[in-house]
Amino acid sequence: MKLLITGGGGFLGARLARALLARSTLAGEKITSVVLTDIAPPPADLLGDARVSARTGPLLAQTDALRDESFDGVFHLASAVSGECEADFELGLRSNLDSTRALLDALRFRVNAGGKVPRVVFSSSVAVFGPDPALPLPKVVADDTLPAPQTSYGTQKLICEHLVADYTRKGYIDGRSARLMTVTVRPGRPNGAASSFFSGIIREPLAGVESICPVSPEVSHPVSSPSRTVDGLIAVFEASREQIVGRSALNLPALNVRVSEMLAALEQVAGKAVRERVRFERDERIAGIVANWPSGASGARAAGLGLKPHENFADIIRQYIDDCSKLPNASETLKGLSK
Amino acid sequence: MKLLITGGGGFLGARLARALLARSTLAGEKITSVVLTDIAPPPADLLGDARVSARTGPLLAQTDALRDESFDGVFHLASAVSGECEADFELGLRSNLDSTRALLDALRFRVNAGGKVPRVVFSSSVAVFGPDPALPLPKVVADDTLPAPQTSYGTQKLICEHLVADYTRKGYIDGRSARLMTVTVRPGRPNGAASSFFSGIIREPLAGVESICPVSPEVSHPVSSPSRTVDGLIAVFEASREQIVGRSALNLPALNVRVSEMLAALEQVAGKAVRERVRFERDERIAGIVANWPSGASGARAAGLGLKPHENFADIIRQYIDDCSKLPNASETLKGLSK
Repeated sequence: MKLLITGGGGFLGARLARALLARSTLAGEKITSVVLTDIAPPPADLLGDARVSARTGPLLAQTDALRDESFDGVFHLASAVSGECEADFELGLRSNLDSTRALLDALRFRVNAGGKVPRVVFSSSVAVFGPDPALPLPKVVADDTLPAPQTSYGTQKLICEHLVADYTRKGYIDGRSARLMTVTVRPGRPNGAASSFFSGIIREPLAGVESICPVSPEVSHPVSSPSRTVDGLIAVFEASREQIVGRSALNLPALNVRVSEMLAALEQVAGKAVRERVRFERDERIAGIVANWPSGASGARAAGLGLKPHENFADIIRQYIDDCSKLPNASETLKGLSK
Repeated sequence: MKLLITGGGGFLGARLARALLARSTLAGEKITSVVLTDIAPPPADLLGDARVSARTGPLLAQTDALRDESFDGVFHLASAVSGECEADFELGLRSNLDSTRALLDALRFRVNAGGKVPRVVFSSSVAVFGPDPALPLPKVVADDTLPAPQTSYGTQKLICEHLVADYTRKGYIDGRSARLMTVTVRPGRPNGAASSFFSGIIREPLAGVESICPVSPEVSHPVSSPSRTVDGLIAVFEASREQIVGRSALNLPALNVRVSEMLAALEQVAGKAVRERVRFERDERIAGIVANWPSGASGARAAGLGLKPHENFADIIRQYIDDCSKLPNASETLKGLSK
């Protein structure tokens, strides 16, 4: 089977690609070809796999060509992140809304031309939820909590959920929208996401670098590890339509955790010296965005697919350390551990 | 003040224009100019008003020019109807989604160029609600019921609600989305809406013509008269932001009525002979669409603005007869009454 992963050069997209290539099958079929699109090329290990082809550039510039190509499955991960979308309204509309619409239309075009209906997993976000004055937000958002996004990013993700549902209803795709929790611990450098610090306060101290937490230790948030998130995307792809139940989006599993608990877990796993590299310095812009996010999420439909969150945050940190230790730059990324 | 009414040549748009011109003020300001856009020109009485200018053609072809023009208020009513959108997917995307996006971007462009933030009322629809297998639909949908549209029309309306909310949050417009109930009794001819028969089973018998009801007499539906609908749009425009409460869409008032009750009211108002011009002949396509609509709606936030539905359907029929009797073609439209 031939797969398309948009955002396939990014952290999560590349990780998903690796997981799929390692499995070599998906939904019972052999994976023969994986096309990765992204604004930057994918990591070298992926480029070295004969099954992989990479296409570099904005997705919106590639969708016309996609009309001439059939895919058995699509993971649509490409997205501008929340902070970018707040700073640049048009970027968000273009990268998140217009690109998704154009991708769906390319797939529709192929099906109308007699192609097979592709299975599509759309990576939505817990950011679709937010408190509207007319709609107070429950502490823990469920699959069927009414979304009222308070960011352009959340708005665009929610709109795309509804496009995916309607293109599915019309038979142009077999679409499923899975709402990702905040993925932590992300490797690399901070990105433009307002949630970036949820990784930074673990990653930087482990690398021996000071990190600033811009919100109160009392802030609670639904998070997921990279591996559980990738597991979730694959399980949502592999589920039958009956298992998915309906066309509305589902929440992926979340570990609902306070910043203070994250830091206690960091001390437990890596020691007091590492924990003490985190300093609290409130950033009103970020704190304001985060205050409008739910403090927890539940995922009943994901549980129905056998998906579970990590049980505690220490396990997530241990997984991050384990992942890093296998990489050539382990001495850098885990420098703080040995200090 | 200068107003724009998209869909201003249509039944509801023209009626809204007449109501506004008759009031001559809106939200405490004098109405000096009303621009009506529609694919067809507005009725002659509106064209004869010195304050009215009409622009004929698709809205999407007019939005570029709108970037050079400031409006104090906008009523965005232009829309392809549900039946059309099901039959022609691209028409719906273009007429409902792309046109709304382009209109909002034209308004945003003006504000970014230093113009005044316009107040915008978007006419959404009760069609945003529907039963998803994962989300059973309550009998009566409230302002905060989770929408799960089961038609492209409902999907596009819901998406536009969220665009209006986000453009409002960003300060590009002062937007309010009001969900219209099925408007009945509509004059004229049946249109492509799946709900067209809710008017046809009253209008045609009163004109002496047989009418076919494509659904069971037990079907219940939230309806509103044209005048209460126009009152609702005006009240939503005039409300302060505090009165509107939040940025999420609100339901306009609904009279929840069964087809059997509509016909009993017809007999009560117009007599047995008129009632007997309605024949039941199930149309699976229409019955299938209607089965996915809510059987009733509540409008708590609209009630907070002082808006109320008609108390019974006989009053709605009497209003229709009264409206018709003032028009030159009364002898045609009410021919059935005298038979």
